[in-house]
Amino acid sequence: MGDASGAGPEITMKALALPEVRAVCRPIVIGDAATMRRAASIVGIGLPVRSIDRVCDASYADDVVEVIDLQNIDLEQLEFARVQAMAGRAAYECVAKAVEMAVSGEIGAIVTAALHKEALHAAGFGFPGHTEILAHLCGVKSVTMLLVAGDFRVSHVSTHVSLREAIERVKEDRILEVVRLTHEAVRRMGRVQPRIGVAGLNPHAGEGGLFGCEEKTEIAPAVEKARAEGMDVAGPIPPDTVFFRMMHGQYDAVVAMFHDQGHIPVKVLAFDDGVNVTLGLPIIRTSVDHGTVYGKAGKGTARPGSMIQALKLAAEMASTPDRRETGSNTPTGSGRLDDSSGVR
Amino acid sequence: MGDASGAGPEITMKALALPEVRAVCRPIVIGDAATMRRAASIVGIGLPVRSIDRVCDASYADDVVEVIDLQNIDLEQLEFARVQAMAGRAAYECVAKAVEMAVSGEIGAIVTAALHKEALHAAGFGFPGHTEILAHLCGVKSVTMLLVAGDFRVSHVSTHVSLREAIERVKEDRILEVVRLTHEAVRRMGRVQPRIGVAGLNPHAGEGGLFGCEEKTEIAPAVEKARAEGMDVAGPIPPDTVFFRMMHGQYDAVVAMFHDQGHIPVKVLAFDDGVNVTLGLPIIRTSVDHGTVYGKAGKGTARPGSMIQALKLAAEMASTPDRRETGSNTPTGSGRLDDSSGVR
Repeated sequence: MGDASGAGPEITMKALALPEVRAVCRPIVIGDAATMRRAASIVGIGLPVRSIDRVCDASYADDVVEVIDLQNIDLEQLEFARVQAMAGRAAYECVAKAVEMAVSGEIGAIVTAALHKEALHAAGFGFPGHTEILAHLCGVKSVTMLLVAGDFRVSHVSTHVSLREAIERVKEDRILEVVRLTHEAVRRMGRVQPRIGVAGLNPHAGEGGLFGCEEKTEIAPAVEKARAEGMDVAGPIPPDTVFFRMMHGQYDAVVAMFHDQGHIPVKVLAFDDGVNVTLGLPIIRTSVDHGTVYGKAGKGTARPGSMIQALKLAAEMASTPDRRETGSNTPTGSGRLDDSSGVR
Repeated sequence: MGDASGAGPEITMKALALPEVRAVCRPIVIGDAATMRRAASIVGIGLPVRSIDRVCDASYADDVVEVIDLQNIDLEQLEFARVQAMAGRAAYECVAKAVEMAVSGEIGAIVTAALHKEALHAAGFGFPGHTEILAHLCGVKSVTMLLVAGDFRVSHVSTHVSLREAIERVKEDRILEVVRLTHEAVRRMGRVQPRIGVAGLNPHAGEGGLFGCEEKTEIAPAVEKARAEGMDVAGPIPPDTVFFRMMHGQYDAVVAMFHDQGHIPVKVLAFDDGVNVTLGLPIIRTSVDHGTVYGKAGKGTARPGSMIQALKLAAEMASTPDRRETGSNTPTGSGRLDDSSGVR
């Protein structure tokens, strides 16, 4: 549901009212039912909100929105567009409950609306962001961010570290790990043999060692190992042409060496409905690519496009079985199509 | 004229046949007249090519293409799309002649077609590229690259160095220098008080020091000094939002901290007719933003769009007087509208 003082509940309600969303998944909101009822009223959607305690109580009927009701928002006290500890705590509890349900296999994937970092801090949760909460709750150390907008997909060897530190993290093992995670994620997005372009770190991908050596010492060896594992991987490709090539159909995804190398093209292309996917978790998690939209909270005007795409992408990934046979990273229940799965 | 074995002569001929180009400048080709005659025949343009020895011999008539004829290509020996020492040497001589004429004030600006690095090397000129030749011939050490495509303008604190070295070059003095050069260049492109956005180096522009300190120690002080000099400068702005802001009209130019930070957005936006402007020279120089187009050489099919824009931009810059009153960087003749000026 996201932070209740933002537009997350409204966006969620708009998305769940759409037949195109219902056609691909069986959604359950993890949040506060009263907040969702008010959101329905704000956005003018007549669907009743039904509180349930367990996934097995869900009917998945298209004319109702079912909420695992944590009853953790007092609407009398809630203010829109204001950082509040109550909303931060409630949002954290929603994520914690969702992870618990996903890890146990009750649901097939998690789709998250936005949290507010300061509200989390006000509630005593000192995480830098959503992804770090998920990694903590899942007990994994190393995750990565895949941004998806249509056929534009870019994952990152590192994200929220200084550029100096990002260069240090351009290491063969880590690159290979991100290539594997990207391969597996894109495969679950319907590409049987994903074509992956790996960006260089330096201008012109180092121009044969003239402008830096990481292409030779770290990136090329990782690409070679990935190929030896049977993946369709090319690189290192000059960072200023690899995205253009993907846009022209040459790759299904690009592995970027640092945060802005991947984020700059995504932002300038101004995709309306981008989705953020966390790779490296033992569960499937997609997210809207925007914040809490405080400016539109309570007004019913926030656009649900990113949430709709995040729901569809999670459903698609959950419906493709994980190919990996072993390892702690294997989702327990994702891809299951039995009645206990929240996403089909 | 560029490398004679590429499509430069054809592109030049196509551009100079256009009334829209003739309307803004008085062009003179510096190259080989026989090569230009053959280019006219290849592209099917009926304009006669007239050899001249000196600028003062030019008529600037719209129905003729006038060439300062260096007579340095033997067409019998020239092959298209092949690296040749003769073409490399001739191309170098064209640039050297152009610089000589610009520095002496005979012409108001230089517009360059593409050189071929390997052809230059084959001819014994060991420069990494065009820009370095110009800096050498003009006797300056520090230049920078401004990419222009419509209202998208981005200059670079560093270009062809490793990312490690690029971080070392993010220094207050250099940033201030690039801001000044960018301000002056954009002013000559018709913006009375250019609004300049300075990108950060680290993700989220360092997020208050959490992901790197260069924003605080180098970039912010440079921005402050530039403001104290009366320039309209903002920053450091997060690298993944600063370009989006420029595209929405907030800035007239962005100062990028390294090569790919500026090149990635330009390339993914796939501007057809980008122009490369060299800042820091005592002369005005614009260039096509593509290579020698070997694949289309001799076929008459290469697009002249970038050359047309490079000509127009050079004309615009040359027609705005340099505001700087002193210093060796002041173009001797740029902006002069008397008869000895090759660009009006």
